[in-house]
Amino acid sequence: MSAIVTLTSDFGLTDAYVSAMKGAILGINPEAALVDISHSIEPQNISQAAFVLSTACENFPDGTVHLVVVDPGVGTERKGIILKTPKSCFVAPDNGVLTYVARAYGQSSELGPNPSSGSGQRLEAVSLTNKDFWHSPVSATFHGRDIFAPVAAHLSLGVPISEFGDRIPAIQFLPVPGVSRGVDGSLVGSIIHIDRFGNLITNIKCEHLTGKPWKMVVEVGQQRIEGLNRTYAEGEGLSALTGSSDHLEIAMKEGSASQFLGARVGDEVVLREMV
Amino acid sequence: MSAIVTLTSDFGLTDAYVSAMKGAILGINPEAALVDISHSIEPQNISQAAFVLSTACENFPDGTVHLVVVDPGVGTERKGIILKTPKSCFVAPDNGVLTYVARAYGQSSELGPNPSSGSGQRLEAVSLTNKDFWHSPVSATFHGRDIFAPVAAHLSLGVPISEFGDRIPAIQFLPVPGVSRGVDGSLVGSIIHIDRFGNLITNIKCEHLTGKPWKMVVEVGQQRIEGLNRTYAEGEGLSALTGSSDHLEIAMKEGSASQFLGARVGDEVVLREMV
Amino acid sequence: MSAIVTLTSDFGLTDAYVSAMKGAILGINPEAALVDISHSIEPQNISQAAFVLSTACENFPDGTVHLVVVDPGVGTERKGIILKTPKSCFVAPDNGVLTYVARAYGQSSELGPNPSSGSGQRLEAVSLTNKDFWHSPVSATFHGRDIFAPVAAHLSLGVPISEFGDRIPAIQFLPVPGVSRGVDGSLVGSIIHIDRFGNLITNIKCEHLTGKPWKMVVEVGQQRIEGLNRTYAEGEGLSALTGSSDHLEIAMKEGSASQFLGARVGDEVVLREMV
Repeated sequence: MSAIVTLTSDFGLTDAYVSAMKGAILGINPEAALVDISHSIEPQNISQAAFVLSTACENFPDGTVHLVVVDPGVGTERKGIILKTPKSCFVAPDNGVLTYVARAYGQSSELGPNPSSGSGQRLEAVSLTNKDFWHSPVSATFHGRDIFAPVAAHLSLGVPISEFGDRIPAIQFLPVPGVSRGVDGSLVGSIIHIDRFGNLITNIKCEHLTGKPWKMVVEVGQQRIEGLNRTYAEGEGLSALTGSSDHLEIAMKEGSASQFLGARVGDEVVLREMV
Repeated sequence: MSAIVTLTSDFGLTDAYVSAMKGAILGINPEAALVDISHSIEPQNISQAAFVLSTACENFPDGTVHLVVVDPGVGTERKGIILKTPKSCFVAPDNGVLTYVARAYGQSSELGPNPSSGSGQRLEAVSLTNKDFWHSPVSATFHGRDIFAPVAAHLSLGVPISEFGDRIPAIQFLPVPGVSRGVDGSLVGSIIHIDRFGNLITNIKCEHLTGKPWKMVVEVGQQRIEGLNRTYAEGEGLSALTGSSDHLEIAMKEGSASQFLGARVGDEVVLREMV
Repeated sequence: MSAIVTLTSDFGLTDAYVSAMKGAILGINPEAALVDISHSIEPQNISQAAFVLSTACENFPDGTVHLVVVDPGVGTERKGIILKTPKSCFVAPDNGVLTYVARAYGQSSELGPNPSSGSGQRLEAVSLTNKDFWHSPVSATFHGRDIFAPVAAHLSLGVPISEFGDRIPAIQFLPVPGVSRGVDGSLVGSIIHIDRFGNLITNIKCEHLTGKPWKMVVEVGQQRIEGLNRTYAEGEGLSALTGSSDHLEIAMKEGSASQFLGARVGDEVVLREMV
């Protein structure tokens, strides 16, 4: 069955770990179309993987299976899970790596009906316990190859998630930084990702940007950026704009905002309206 | 339809930008075979992308679609284009990134019949204006995902290029360095690419090498290399030879010519015949 | 024919060499499923490629074709070969890069019946001499594209190995470090690979570990590690455990054993039983 399986990990591209997972998948579903999201997640950086995954998965067709293996707790009591959204299935260790994916559906760790929209849209999750879908034997150090990849492959063949284990009511969430509103009406958020170009991606989303773009001010480090741009190519020096995943970004024309500002993930970013 | 779509970009492999484009393609043509050429082009280095692309594309079967996204002008008035050669289609921003591809057909920026060969072989180009083939809405910062990838996917399904927009008579060309002939008959060219092994690839092509290989002398930096080798494994130290894409290369046995010489893209290389 | 072809090389992912090989394969077998094992092998490090390949290939389905191009001798008299195991075919230069693969079948360089098991299981090899399966012309500097990739593609279409050239009785082997037994019964091995996480992978295999795990001691550098763990997540600091490819590994909790110890490939590791 010609289904898509994406792969995200912190395994890097020098060792054979990624290809070991791909071999395991193709042994079960030879027709699977395998697509790498990223294998250059920093070792054991669950938070980075959670964000990168969330910016990619919405671009794949319905029915795609996303395999995510950033798994410092491999071999311990942490669960393996499948999370099913209306669009896709995710196979991962239950360590918070699906936080942004679930939050995009308005979910906290309890997987009930969407509390904010009241839409009743429900995410489902199961705990991976049915060993019929695992490789045998299972290495204590590489569940990616021996549990998660085989489960993803069987999912891509159309096996229903209820076959893989019991339904669970909640999954682990990372304590992701929130956006708060200052007493003066400003929005206070933070940098959650820095991309290859040195663009600083914040947790402030488009939906928070209600003022007129040219009246907005962004403060980051000791810098103040007046007005929001539409593209990377406009203006000179630092600029603020809405990036391709609908987050407020800070960029630098023909340079790296990250290097220029010495900025790091976690640094505060303030958005306010000019008086 | 099982067509090949290759991808070249400066997006790197850590962020999810490449996979976002792949998801967009597979949503339109689930049977497309996706092949990465390179995503490690230096940020916004159009010239590097243009060369790397040109050394790969001739090795793919007829009908391959090549998607190229090195696009510092994204969201501005620069056009998006399809260039059609007798062998392949290229989808890219019109910023010169197809310079080497078009020059291989003897074309300058005007896409007329081949002036040197008089063969009448014609390249065609269209400007991407038909939004029916784009994702909606289009992000102002990521045309790779929202315009170029969908267009490449539709091309891979066999949609004729005339459907995507109006024919244009010329495309942008980079001012690529030429090879000149010195008063003494020597050829004066330059380094246009340095590969992973530190090999220095020049713009002097095999077709310029009419003398006997053992009577040729290559000058680069303060070094003088006598005779051309056939393989990397011959001799000791620095050597000059014809590489796999028919360009004169300078290599170093069990080492990096680039490091040894401190050489950079743009440095002059002279080829002359020994007296 | 929808067969799997894996690729391993030292070409890196910036230049177009890898994609040139993929284009050559797809031109012959458009249905081949291409899977990268690694292209980040250090330039010309045959030994690293040999090990990485051996940890991946067992995870692929029967009938997979493995293409391996780490080839400092390209264009010289070194042979190109196909090695056929009961499970897979390998296409590579005959420079030792298949050493670990062949040793996994109990073979030394002579490809006779397995001497230790007496099972009569036989590996076969042929020398690539039949130019009908090569690209024409052949570049003297890129047999990966012009010989090995086309041969791998034809193999993936089901052409029997006897068509590609004459049977050869032996292949080249690297002098891989052995495990010896000290006078006190200890096992003396060495580090053969360091992975992305800084884990030190040794040539001591599970099958050598007959004592009780909690009574074993591992000595590496000036450090002494008591007891073997089951997972990376247990305990604190340095630990020793059996990794996913059944080799004894030294790891560091939330850190890099390699950095902490300043360890390098080739360093001695001793395993003994506590008194």
